Amino acid sequence: MDIATGGPLISIINFKDAEELDLHSGDRVRLNCGRKKAIAIVDFAESKKALPRGKIGLFEELIKKLNVKNNDKISLKLVEKPKSIRYIRKTLDGEKLNPKEIRIIIEDIVNNRLSEAELAYFVAASYTHIMSINETVALTKAMINTGDVLKLKCRNVIDKHCIGGVAGNRTTMIIMPIIAAAGLIIPKTSSRSITSPAGTADTMEVLTNVSHSLEDIKKIIKKTNGCLVWGGSLNLAPADDKIIKVEHPLNLDARSQLLASILAKKASVSAKHVLVDIPVGKGAKIHSKKRALILKKQFELIGKKLGMQIYVVITNGSEPVGKGLGPVLEARDVLYVLKGDKRMPVDLKKKSIRLAGIMLEMGKKAKKGEGVKLAREILESGKAYDKFIEIIKAQGGKEISPDKLKLAKFKRNIKAEKRGKVMHIDNATIAKVARIAGAPADKEAGIYLYVRKNMQVKKGEVLFTIYSNSKAKLKFAVNTFKEIGGVVIKS
Amino acid sequence: MDIATGGPLISIINFKDAEELDLHSGDRVRLNCGRKKAIAIVDFAESKKALPRGKIGLFEELIKKLNVKNNDKISLKLVEKPKSIRYIRKTLDGEKLNPKEIRIIIEDIVNNRLSEAELAYFVAASYTHIMSINETVALTKAMINTGDVLKLKCRNVIDKHCIGGVAGNRTTMIIMPIIAAAGLIIPKTSSRSITSPAGTADTMEVLTNVSHSLEDIKKIIKKTNGCLVWGGSLNLAPADDKIIKVEHPLNLDARSQLLASILAKKASVSAKHVLVDIPVGKGAKIHSKKRALILKKQFELIGKKLGMQIYVVITNGSEPVGKGLGPVLEARDVLYVLKGDKRMPVDLKKKSIRLAGIMLEMGKKAKKGEGVKLAREILESGKAYDKFIEIIKAQGGKEISPDKLKLAKFKRNIKAEKRGKVMHIDNATIAKVARIAGAPADKEAGIYLYVRKNMQVKKGEVLFTIYSNSKAKLKFAVNTFKEIGGVVIKS
Repeated sequence: MDIATGGPLISIINFKDAEELDLHSGDRVRLNCGRKKAIAIVDFAESKKALPRGKIGLFEELIKKLNVKNNDKISLKLVEKPKSIRYIRKTLDGEKLNPKEIRIIIEDIVNNRLSEAELAYFVAASYTHIMSINETVALTKAMINTGDVLKLKCRNVIDKHCIGGVAGNRTTMIIMPIIAAAGLIIPKTSSRSITSPAGTADTMEVLTNVSHSLEDIKKIIKKTNGCLVWGGSLNLAPADDKIIKVEHPLNLDARSQLLASILAKKASVSAKHVLVDIPVGKGAKIHSKKRALILKKQFELIGKKLGMQIYVVITNGSEPVGKGLGPVLEARDVLYVLKGDKRMPVDLKKKSIRLAGIMLEMGKKAKKGEGVKLAREILESGKAYDKFIEIIKAQGGKEISPDKLKLAKFKRNIKAEKRGKVMHIDNATIAKVARIAGAPADKEAGIYLYVRKNMQVKKGEVLFTIYSNSKAKLKFAVNTFKEIGGVVIKS
Repeated sequence: MDIATGGPLISIINFKDAEELDLHSGDRVRLNCGRKKAIAIVDFAESKKALPRGKIGLFEELIKKLNVKNNDKISLKLVEKPKSIRYIRKTLDGEKLNPKEIRIIIEDIVNNRLSEAELAYFVAASYTHIMSINETVALTKAMINTGDVLKLKCRNVIDKHCIGGVAGNRTTMIIMPIIAAAGLIIPKTSSRSITSPAGTADTMEVLTNVSHSLEDIKKIIKKTNGCLVWGGSLNLAPADDKIIKVEHPLNLDARSQLLASILAKKASVSAKHVLVDIPVGKGAKIHSKKRALILKKQFELIGKKLGMQIYVVITNGSEPVGKGLGPVLEARDVLYVLKGDKRMPVDLKKKSIRLAGIMLEMGKKAKKGEGVKLAREILESGKAYDKFIEIIKAQGGKEISPDKLKLAKFKRNIKAEKRGKVMHIDNATIAKVARIAGAPADKEAGIYLYVRKNMQVKKGEVLFTIYSNSKAKLKFAVNTFKEIGGVVIKS
């Protein structure tokens, strides 16, 4: 069967055969074909047409693993369920797990030995019975140890992470070169967008190649002190992606998994110091300051147990940061800031300097209280821009002027319907409109904001421009904005 | 794609297409093919070979529903997730659900609108946050209303249910004709075996046809007052089977679902009085008397709210009841008891009379304290046997002598290795050996026990005989018993 879902290995047999063999849906069987072996989960075909008796259907990964051809003979034998099932049941019963048990669960997740339902039970268990600090530490270690690691021998490795949910907010691309220019090592891996108009990796990709092997990354860092690559093509703490996939349908995020997955990704690139940015606000991922403070405390505690210095900064996440939303528009904002172009979004520069300042202090490049000054100096002197171009080139790109960046063919201005004060620009709504316009798959699509919170606008003044390479999508984006709003003006 | 798993409707597209369409695994799409429509869950193929871009793979049920042929054009559009997802998230967060929300969840389960993971989240939520009595009542009603109902207009409808886990224990086939002969209506639906050597439906099938439509069942009951059919082919409270399927991997049973599913199946056949047998013991499904008492209380409370009279009896479930294990061997035991043959297992007769006695009192056919006497009279006079044969015939079978029942070709006697007293016969172990011998798929296979708890045995005395139609299975069964034991003798 030509199906490959990237999940567990699945074989399908006729339900009458299953009955005779006393197999249940979800049971494991060992398949033998010649000398090749594989363990797979059984599912049933309910009709003869789908699968006649005596036949077995194999998903693509299994065909490959068993090196099997049509009409080859396959023998099968019931095997025990993976041990992790017992431990998942244990957590669901509210019992604590020891590090070995957690390790076995994570190994089975990474090796696709669990079905979707079994994985969902694990997520549900860690969601309803919040894991203890020790369990979360064990979870983090298990996530690190089941993936690849970027080994950097120096102690000066620093990294940052943002919990997300704020539109724009492309600080990483500005902070990274400031930190690298100051002499610290910053092996930055970023994700692509899931629900936003652009992820850092999508935006960086406008300017250079972001898919690199761990070997290449090592070389780039050796040469430049930094990098900014897509983490998705690496195998760092891979359990995380599989857990996220099963959390998606319910929009769950189990706190212990959030903590563990972030710290595991950072530890996997040898980071000793990590700045965590938690934006708090209505449209952001974390809505309440209270929840942010709990997270902060736990980050610090767990970091300590892992031998990492974690500094958590809680920032305002209620409005977009920067003017552009969408890969090209955000890349342009970043270049404006790095080049000191007066068209830059001032809020993006300010936030980047603030965070870079803290990191310079963490990495002992500046005395306490003097980080922001140093960060500004590195940025405004052009050193950060030079470092950025050096890294862009090391990753296979070349210098490009922000004015040469091509935007999408079609655009529409959205104007204020009355005069008044901008009270709120909603992250989630504005991100949705930008995505409908085509971002991030269409890198040139997105939104460019002209107004900010607290600005006075006249009736008919342009609030923002929507860009798209598809007339249909542009129209749909405009209509969606008209329907759901997202910019609140009070006269 | 020739796959039909009986679960939700699934369509598969290339992951690059998914990226462009901004679809995530688990999202719902509306598919249109000509005038036909269907809503399906999206999964991704990770390689071009599995599914080239622009193509869509459909599981068998979808092909049927859309009436689609190869190379037909299909359009797809993202649609909202079913509302039930929101309510499942709510229960996972520990919030209570109102009857309407529970009803919507159950409707989506029955209509296969939820993925395996989503269904697992619901089960996990009801498992970790125990449902209130009102929620369980709403769950029961939702299960009834989403299935078919056997409408019987009379008030004298009585039924029984056993929680299970005891080997043998084929009381239902003896109780049913006693009750029907006494003039009460007993529309008995039973299940096939899941983990035991035989279910009541498997055993009854040795003697007559057990697959009947609701229409036929009505006719059989009108004629005979009773029936004993397989519930699986009917559509009574169908949510239950789907929930059980996803509970299976972790061997979960959420208490509220256990209660709801049993009472829903009984209410679906119009039962007004229900006797629930909870066997308690090491090898049984319920291990502790404490848990049984909690269940008893809840059964009675929920029954009251549903307008049903529930009587719960806690019985000894630590040893098998009857001598035969396996469909034919158990059918023979039942016929021995009904015919008064001296080869009958006395414990099976005793337990059947005890339970039937309670039911006769519940149905007002006997005064309080006089039910057992009446039950014995009906059984020993042969009236129960005559009623049984009447029902066997109404269901399409004919009278057969217990000595004419064919047993499996091969057999092996298992002998005592020392003299002493039989301390324990373990339900679960002995059931496993009988299943390995081929029961219940091989109806003639199983175990016939010669000894009971507290009996004195000599060294070399036959403890039981294993029957099988396969030499290999017989050998494997014998070896398994040698390895895991199951009959404890103390000298």
